[in-house]
Amino acid sequence: MSKCIWLTGLSGSGKTTIANLLAAQYKDKGQLTCVLDGDQIRLGLNKDLGFTRSDRHENARRVAEVAKILVDLEILVIVALISPFSEDRHKARALFQPGQFIEVYVDTSLKRCATRDVKGLYTLQENGLIKNMTGITSPYEIPKNPDIHLRTDTTDAIECCELIKKHISV
Amino acid sequence: MSKCIWLTGLSGSGKTTIANLLAAQYKDKGQLTCVLDGDQIRLGLNKDLGFTRSDRHENARRVAEVAKILVDLEILVIVALISPFSEDRHKARALFQPGQFIEVYVDTSLKRCATRDVKGLYTLQENGLIKNMTGITSPYEIPKNPDIHLRTDTTDAIECCELIKKHISV
Repeated sequence: MSKCIWLTGLSGSGKTTIANLLAAQYKDKGQLTCVLDGDQIRLGLNKDLGFTRSDRHENARRVAEVAKILVDLEILVIVALISPFSEDRHKARALFQPGQFIEVYVDTSLKRCATRDVKGLYTLQENGLIKNMTGITSPYEIPKNPDIHLRTDTTDAIECCELIKKHISV
Repeated sequence: MSKCIWLTGLSGSGKTTIANLLAAQYKDKGQLTCVLDGDQIRLGLNKDLGFTRSDRHENARRVAEVAKILVDLEILVIVALISPFSEDRHKARALFQPGQFIEVYVDTSLKRCATRDVKGLYTLQENGLIKNMTGITSPYEIPKNPDIHLRTDTTDAIECCELIKKHISV
């Protein structure tokens, strides 16, 4: 049974890094794998959406629907999406069969994300150039019962991938 | 190189029948294949959209973006979508590499579609229960230079599939 591995967490928490590394590992094993990355999807399918609450709901909804199409084709899907609202993650899960949707909380402190600031967004936010920054001016609802909880402050990407693979193979 | 086979035509012209038959044939050959059917997509990804002009544009845009994701995974995609506007079909084509997007005009007379009336939509329209019926109260822009022109008034679904496969294998 194929899966949807759904990485949720703040901007800069390491979702994309983990997603791409994990995808590469599964591809090496011959598993057809697809990364649905929030930043990429916003250049295509979701380019009409902004960062209001309703647009964030719609952003997550569409990604979940595409993930469902892919999983039905037996493709392993790895979603890397802030997806700040519990409701959206629950709705995403509801599209899949039991055990098919793996919610992975990529947990890094806001301070650490802001220090890394890979995309420069935290600096832009500090300078008042970005509204609706998740975790600062826009809420991030911490997953209460994620299937996997990765602490990327203390766990590197390679170890994170191992934890995910271990969970899935059980 | 994988392809996006894009079937456009009036409601009842035979798009879904051809798409499903063709997909079954490619699957039998071991080709990973996905049908993106307008009616199905409107139950999931595009369930927020109606039948206004702008919603029809958005409907086609999203289907094209999903098709692109799938084709990039080497999946053969068969789209069955009324997609009444030339502009949308051109934009869809523009997402793909040259030769990767095959526009197939599924050409059946409106009279024949209304006689078949597989989904009962033409009857509903006659009774004033449907607005924006393509080909009657909403425009259908006939493809000027489709890659393949199927005349389903005189060609059955099996023959249509042969014509598409012949075109692709050339």
